[in-house]
Order: sequence, then structure tokens, then C-alpha cells
Amino acid sequence: MITTSPFWSTGIDQLKAYTPGEQPQSGGWVKLNTNECPYPPSPRAIAAIQAATGEQLRLYPDPNGTAFKGAIARHFGLGADHVFVGNGSDEVLAHAFLGLLKHSLPILYPDVSYSFYPVYCGLYDIAYTQVPLGPDFAVNVADYCVPNGGIVLPNPNAPTGMALGLDQLRVLLGANRNSVVLIDEAYVDFGAESAASLIPEFDNLLVVQTLSKSRALAGLRVGFALGHPALIEALARVKDSFNSYPLDRLALAGAQAAIEDQAYFEQITAAVVKSRDWLTAELTQLGFHTLPSSANFVFSSHPVHPAADLLAALRERKILVRHFAKGRIANHLRISVGTQQECEALIDALQHIVSQTAPKKEATA
Amino acid sequence: MITTSPFWSTGIDQLKAYTPGEQPQSGGWVKLNTNECPYPPSPRAIAAIQAATGEQLRLYPDPNGTAFKGAIARHFGLGADHVFVGNGSDEVLAHAFLGLLKHSLPILYPDVSYSFYPVYCGLYDIAYTQVPLGPDFAVNVADYCVPNGGIVLPNPNAPTGMALGLDQLRVLLGANRNSVVLIDEAYVDFGAESAASLIPEFDNLLVVQTLSKSRALAGLRVGFALGHPALIEALARVKDSFNSYPLDRLALAGAQAAIEDQAYFEQITAAVVKSRDWLTAELTQLGFHTLPSSANFVFSSHPVHPAADLLAALRERKILVRHFAKGRIANHLRISVGTQQECEALIDALQHIVSQTAPKKEATA
Repeated sequence: MITTSPFWSTGIDQLKAYTPGEQPQSGGWVKLNTNECPYPPSPRAIAAIQAATGEQLRLYPDPNGTAFKGAIARHFGLGADHVFVGNGSDEVLAHAFLGLLKHSLPILYPDVSYSFYPVYCGLYDIAYTQVPLGPDFAVNVADYCVPNGGIVLPNPNAPTGMALGLDQLRVLLGANRNSVVLIDEAYVDFGAESAASLIPEFDNLLVVQTLSKSRALAGLRVGFALGHPALIEALARVKDSFNSYPLDRLALAGAQAAIEDQAYFEQITAAVVKSRDWLTAELTQLGFHTLPSSANFVFSSHPVHPAADLLAALRERKILVRHFAKGRIANHLRISVGTQQECEALIDALQHIVSQTAPKKEATA
Repeated sequence: MITTSPFWSTGIDQLKAYTPGEQPQSGGWVKLNTNECPYPPSPRAIAAIQAATGEQLRLYPDPNGTAFKGAIARHFGLGADHVFVGNGSDEVLAHAFLGLLKHSLPILYPDVSYSFYPVYCGLYDIAYTQVPLGPDFAVNVADYCVPNGGIVLPNPNAPTGMALGLDQLRVLLGANRNSVVLIDEAYVDFGAESAASLIPEFDNLLVVQTLSKSRALAGLRVGFALGHPALIEALARVKDSFNSYPLDRLALAGAQAAIEDQAYFEQITAAVVKSRDWLTAELTQLGFHTLPSSANFVFSSHPVHPAADLLAALRERKILVRHFAKGRIANHLRISVGTQQECEALIDALQHIVSQTAPKKEATA
């Protein structure tokens, strides 16, 4: 590995990159490690992509994504000037960090949260303070009512899956009128309530969503932000100074169709929620402690079996889950909710793993 | 227009964004303004995209674009560790500016060049010096053999279309062993020679290419860089701190197939070159002065008819060309080479425009 070079700009050797979950290029895995949707994208999205696949690909896309923005605006009952679109919510977040969150005071976000946030801060030299979650992994809104350069809060939080209600977000927003409050709603469609409805009340609110989870389009790379036009303008300025056309013609077509297919969206998110509840109950039966999840994953630990051991044992059975080997979450696994069949395969495997070692413990007890 | 906000990070109000060429959303235009390829993408690229359009879109793409990188590496006879891929060459350039070109000394690039370069410098606070082209619009390599923080040179240059030979690039690279020399080869496939062959000799050379022009995939947003693994690593560090998956599954599939279809590539680039030569000769007949182009566009001025007037008159006839209303190029038009039919439509229109006003001038002479 190359760790430095005189050709690098100052600070590049200090960058700590985000590590995405493993994307195995071979088949045969039960893949519960990157919170993808277990169901295929909307048939209307597939059809829209097919219709856009042709000679027109020789032409640049609409740099403003006008039609797609219009669909999002209609969906949320906002003006199109309240919408920004980008290459996955990761790109949208990056532009928000650079355009809205670089001030003299540090920004605040939870100590247990999406691990890309400190990476953006490193890339753009943004000061930050990590605010500890409560002992129950809950976000305490009062902890964020102190001077700050901005607030970033995933709702539901990841990897805990726990959500705040709009009443608490309203307190947070009202106490921070002079700061941008970015609510990262990557997982909101699986059981939390979107803060988008608060945008007319709060000009300091930026809501970020993705089509990777509840729209089943992780492979298409589309995300968006909603907020007051002054916040959107900052994102547009950064984007137009970086890459005029981050969304290709196929992504724009597929994403618009996915947003417009409300019935399919409701169907697949309901199926995930149903399997999540089943999975949570089964994990409890096996002795796991699982945090109350409003997301398409659960965050679970076992009092006897270390998470790292479970991760390895599941991997041997070609089941991938995610493990963050740090601090007080080092004994938790983040398990994406798969199809019902995949959830059953996971539970079967865990039953075997737990029972293989449990008798030994009883014998020696 | 919103020009400032207390929510914006410092400097966002000062950003001067790049203005892309117009992308009319209605039909019926002869579109010669953004240097797209007039021919459709490779049928193999279309087929590859169709094959990738399905259930798999629910899964994240390969964050490393391994298969696509492999195809590029084979094409250029380099190792895969010499290849970086991104969302259009604009994103690749942005990462290169941030990762490799931010030093204490200013970077150098021509005063008449791709107008995104100063925009990146503004976004990332990079010092730069614009080096004047010669009176004939040529790049003089000796002007770049002075202390600098890096060099960015499009070859062929845009919007002039004029190219340097490898002998001159070798002089440039040898005289700047301690600086990154970025050769932006967006237009190289229409008559210039790629510096990729010099990479084994020069560890300070970064070559950037795009699939938007010679591969007819502007709508898919794919570009790449070639260079010593230490330069590639800097780009990877920035990318992995920004967006893990900038290329979606469809872009990866289509781009790989396009790179592998050498026969089609040769066919469409040859057709563009043939029409460019015809177009240049016809413009000369109409009294235009056209710079010698190695690109898929020509840069042309008329001694009598101001470029701004020609732009407007062509637009009335639903023909779009590009005009940069500044400095010593303010009287030039940049005209993308279209199909032979589009080139003929342009020449027909210019014949009418020139003849409508020329007789008046003769009458008053």
C-alpha cells in the first residue's frame, strides 16, 4: 500500500477513507451486510431505464435533472427549488458538508452513527464534536442544544436503527435556528416519519434521502436533499463547481419512475418491516438483545457469543452481516433485513452456531 | 437568485460555477454546442446496459469498478493499479485537483483552455497562474518550464482544438519531474496521440480521458485517469472519502463494453475526422479562419461577421454552437463536428447568413 508521495496535496496522506461493506463479486451469498433492499426495483423503473437505453446516451443528461426534481417535489408537496439531486446520498452529504457545515464552531453528530461523517470532515477540514448516545443508544436532543456549526443526525440512526419523533426534531430545530440541521433519512421509510413536512417551518432544515434502500436502487446511485431554497442553492453551487452532470440519463429515468411508483414502494417497505419484526422476535428467542429498529436492519448482540465470532461463523455459511469492531458497539452485529427466506436462513444458521457452543458452556458450568 | 446566506460555509458565496453548454429538452435542434459524438454508442455498450438492467440494480455496484478498470488496463497495456475511474472526466479532474494539485506554488494551465479548471481552483482554494497561449493560439512548452505546483494541459487543447506531439510532452514532463503534469485527453482520439505510452517513463504524468466524446457516451458519465500507482492512490483516497460508488452498475457495464469495442470506436472517430476536414474546407470557402483541429470540433472566426451575431443567427435556425464571450476568443465559435448531414445543414445556414449581410457591405463599400 502506498502511504505517501511528494506529488500528493497536503493532507492526502492523513485521509481516513470510508470502508463500504463487502460487495462479493461471486454468487451464492446471503447478503445482509449493506442494507440493500431484498426485493427488486419497481418494474416501472426497469422499464424507464430500458426506454432510455439507446442512441440518446450519446448526449449529455439534463445537468439540472429537472424532470426528476419535479417528481420529487410533487411527491413531497414542495417546490422544485426545494430539491437537490445527486449521485447517491453520499455525494449529496459530501456537498452538504462542504457547502453548509464548514464554520468556525464544530459540527455535532452522534458518536455512534454513519461512519462516513468523520470522513467528510477529514476531507474538507471541518471541525466536529461527537456527541455520545445515551446508555440505551438513544439520541438525547438536549445534548445538541449547545453552540455549534451545524448538526448532522441520521433518523433513524445507523447502525442502531432507533428513531426520533417529529416532536423531538421540532425541539432540535427550534433550539438551533442559526445552524443547519441535516437529518439523514436514508432509512426513514421503514418506520420513522420524514422531517420533510417541517421544511416550511424551519429554514435551517436539510433533509437527505436515498433511493438505495426503500426504492431498491443501490446499484443506480441516486440521492436527494430537501430544504429551503437558500440551502439548496449552496448545494447547487458546490455541485456546479465539481461535476455538472453527476446523474446519468439512465439514473435520472429510473429514479423518477421509482419515485412515481408509490404502490410498489409501499408493498416492498411493508414486506421488509414484516420480516424485520419476525427476525427481531426470532433473535430474541435465541437470546439476542436487539435495539428497537425503525430501519431495514437490526442491531443485535448476544450475551454469550461475541459478535466477531458470530460474524466469522456466519461467513463460513456464506452469510454476510456487518460488524463495526470499535468502542461500545464492538459486540453488536448490524443485520440487514433480507427476504423472509433469507431471514429464515440467518436464523437457522444462528440456531446452529449458538447451540454448537452453548452445550459446552453448560457442561463446564 | 440567492447570492448569500448565513447558513453557507465560508466562500460559497464567492464560487463561480462552470456553465455547461445548453442541453435543450425539446427536439428539432442541430446540436453542435457540447462536443458530443454525432453517432450512437457501440451496440455492444447498449446490449451490456440492457443485460445489467434488472433485479441486480437493488445491489450496490462494485465500489472499485474492477472489471471496467481491467478493460481499460488491457486497452492501454498498463496494470490495473495504473487506472482510476470516475463519474465523467469532470469528477476525475476534480479529484485530481484536490488530491494532487494543491501545493504552495500555483499550478499552471493555458489562459485559453477548459473553463472548468479555474472553477476547481475556486472550489478547493488552489493557487493558479494562467499561461498565455502564443499569438497563433499554440501552447509553448517552454512557458511551463518554471517553478510550479503542477501543470494542467488539455491535449488537444479546448476550445482551440490544437494538439502537441509526444516529443513536446516529453520535454514538458522531463522539465517538471517534481510536479504532477495532468494531460487532459478528452479529445485525443480525433487526431492527437495519447501520452499514456509515456507513463512507464514518467511517474509525474497523469492522463485523463472520457467516454463522452470518442465513445459516444456523454449520457452515461464515465471518465478515467491513467498514471503511476502513487498518483492513482491519491485519487482513490479522495474518492473513498467522498463517494464510495460514483459509477452505477449500468455505467460500469456500458463503459466496459464500449472500451472493448475497438472496431466501432475506430469507425465513428474516423467518420468524425472525415466530416471535420470537410467542414473546415467549407468554412474556409465562406471566409472563416479555422484553427487546425485535432479534436471533434473546430474553432472558427469570420473577419466580417461577429461571432455573437452568427451564434444568434444560427440559433434562429435551430442550430446550436458554442461561444465564449471573453478576451481574445470572443470572436470565435466552437462548432462540434456533427454527422455529415448536420455539417451540411450548418454550412447551408452559414451560407445564407453570410450572403444576407455581405451584399449590403459591398453596396456601401
